[in-house]
Amino acid sequence: MIETPYLLFLGDAPDGLAAKVAQGIKDWRPEFALGQFRMEGCKADMGLPDMDLAAAKAAGCKTLVIGVANRGGVISPAWKKVLVAALEEGFDLASGLHNLLRDEADLVAVAQACGRSLHDVRVPTVAYPIANGEKRTGKRMLAVGTDCSVGKMYTALCMEREMRERGMAASFRATGQTGILITGDGVPLDAVIADFMAGSVEWLTPNNDADHWDLIEGQGSLFHVSYSGVTLALIHGGQPDALVLCHEPVRTHMRGLPGYKLPDLASLRDTALGLAKVANPACQVVGISVNTQAMAEADALEYLAKLEAEMGLPATDPFRFGAGKLVDALAAI
Amino acid sequence: MIETPYLLFLGDAPDGLAAKVAQGIKDWRPEFALGQFRMEGCKADMGLPDMDLAAAKAAGCKTLVIGVANRGGVISPAWKKVLVAALEEGFDLASGLHNLLRDEADLVAVAQACGRSLHDVRVPTVAYPIANGEKRTGKRMLAVGTDCSVGKMYTALCMEREMRERGMAASFRATGQTGILITGDGVPLDAVIADFMAGSVEWLTPNNDADHWDLIEGQGSLFHVSYSGVTLALIHGGQPDALVLCHEPVRTHMRGLPGYKLPDLASLRDTALGLAKVANPACQVVGISVNTQAMAEADALEYLAKLEAEMGLPATDPFRFGAGKLVDALAAI
Repeated sequence: MIETPYLLFLGDAPDGLAAKVAQGIKDWRPEFALGQFRMEGCKADMGLPDMDLAAAKAAGCKTLVIGVANRGGVISPAWKKVLVAALEEGFDLASGLHNLLRDEADLVAVAQACGRSLHDVRVPTVAYPIANGEKRTGKRMLAVGTDCSVGKMYTALCMEREMRERGMAASFRATGQTGILITGDGVPLDAVIADFMAGSVEWLTPNNDADHWDLIEGQGSLFHVSYSGVTLALIHGGQPDALVLCHEPVRTHMRGLPGYKLPDLASLRDTALGLAKVANPACQVVGISVNTQAMAEADALEYLAKLEAEMGLPATDPFRFGAGKLVDALAAI
Repeated sequence: MIETPYLLFLGDAPDGLAAKVAQGIKDWRPEFALGQFRMEGCKADMGLPDMDLAAAKAAGCKTLVIGVANRGGVISPAWKKVLVAALEEGFDLASGLHNLLRDEADLVAVAQACGRSLHDVRVPTVAYPIANGEKRTGKRMLAVGTDCSVGKMYTALCMEREMRERGMAASFRATGQTGILITGDGVPLDAVIADFMAGSVEWLTPNNDADHWDLIEGQGSLFHVSYSGVTLALIHGGQPDALVLCHEPVRTHMRGLPGYKLPDLASLRDTALGLAKVANPACQVVGISVNTQAMAEADALEYLAKLEAEMGLPATDPFRFGAGKLVDALAAI
């Protein structure tokens, strides 16, 4: 297990979205997030105290968590300098990057010399089975998005919090590095070998009590050509009883794909539901979760009301306005 | 490169479908397939001369190719005995199994002692990029199936043969171990890490001449819950201009999934085309390829005529009746 509390490393993040990992930890395990470490040019800010390594050590931080993505990239020399210094200062390192800490010879050497640990949460540690498609007991909700990074993980986490407050049996099931860093376990789905993707989701969401809900973190989008295969494996491995559609209305194109427009929510509903019914003919679309953080409150509420009328489904921003509507819809199944 | 010709190892295959690799080599590179090696209980038969190792050596075989699948299984002691003897007899080994030859300490030791090579064609040897979705020059056809193992590879290979006979520019693009063993290169897609699946397909089918067709081998099925994610990565990474629907009419359920019925061809058409248009809005479904091997010729022809009338698309069994209709449809794009 990763030792807490954390110092969140934001590096030279080009924007807030790139620091999704740090934001997730700060929002869902604020008691673990004592401070942030930002390098020159960093455009992300978690609103936490800025700390250097010595200050973080004095504050009691045990692990430096890399809270920022480097899309298909490398660990830069500027980052490396900080990571080495952190090990020397006595911190463990935890990372969900594609580039593994354990593949960096200098980090391995310094960690060994200092007696510190390197945690690569992106690496699968289980030999997942091939999916067998057999119907499992218990209920499952999956968040599916019009695009990547539209709030699928937040939606599931908000619903878990609301359901637990109501005394319902619910488990957030992490499928990405942020979720794994937050909850301490899950499947790093985008690092799983293709043939075992759906099987890893079956493994993650096994038979359970009839009234128990797995709230499965979505990944990618059926409409995002880089990652759509991962999304379909989640739909078929998760065999959800309920889908929640996730959307961010202010985007001009798919994330990372300037030539691609976002689909509308009706297309997402029809495409995702048709595919979900292959694995679970009883699957229903129960609601819509909108990330309205870029909208004024009145605009957001107007947009949500319009969506509800158009789609005939409850619509909310669960992070801003609460997940009550979505949980009501689940409870009615 | 793998040294030819081959002795095809059929092991203790439970049925002919399990020996798909051997069958593919025998059909598409018959000059490489000098004989077959069958163990007790083997239910597969390629119609090749049965040879023991000494006879195969005398006939000039250089490599023992494992031509039979072991679904998620292990390399059994009975197989191992033959493989070790083959190395000692002077054969190289080539395999597309999930279980790598290189991970078997005894095989590695014997191969080293005998100066022989172990070829694991399933293992990716390229650091594939994340898909960028950019439009590429040249044209691409992808075979999509109602189920796994319905003839997608054969369809693409039949079309390549027909197109080359007509003087058209066409390249079969292998995405599975059989195709790679047949053509000598390709992407072992089911062994690729999830995040890089679509990117590996982009890599496999790069910019090309405007009149050149890539004929992409399909994998899995959008309706097969174990492997559907791989199929969608092919559709979005391949950005096909043309889809050919592949089907085998005599199946009672999805391969390996007793609880799942096959979709009808209209469902496959609508689902696959809708998803393909995300990456290439101009994509068309151009024809239907039916594996009629279990049907009498008159029944097969009647079935195909009925399909053509129902679906409004050319339908053939390209292996039995030629790929002319499908190539005519491609040429008309």
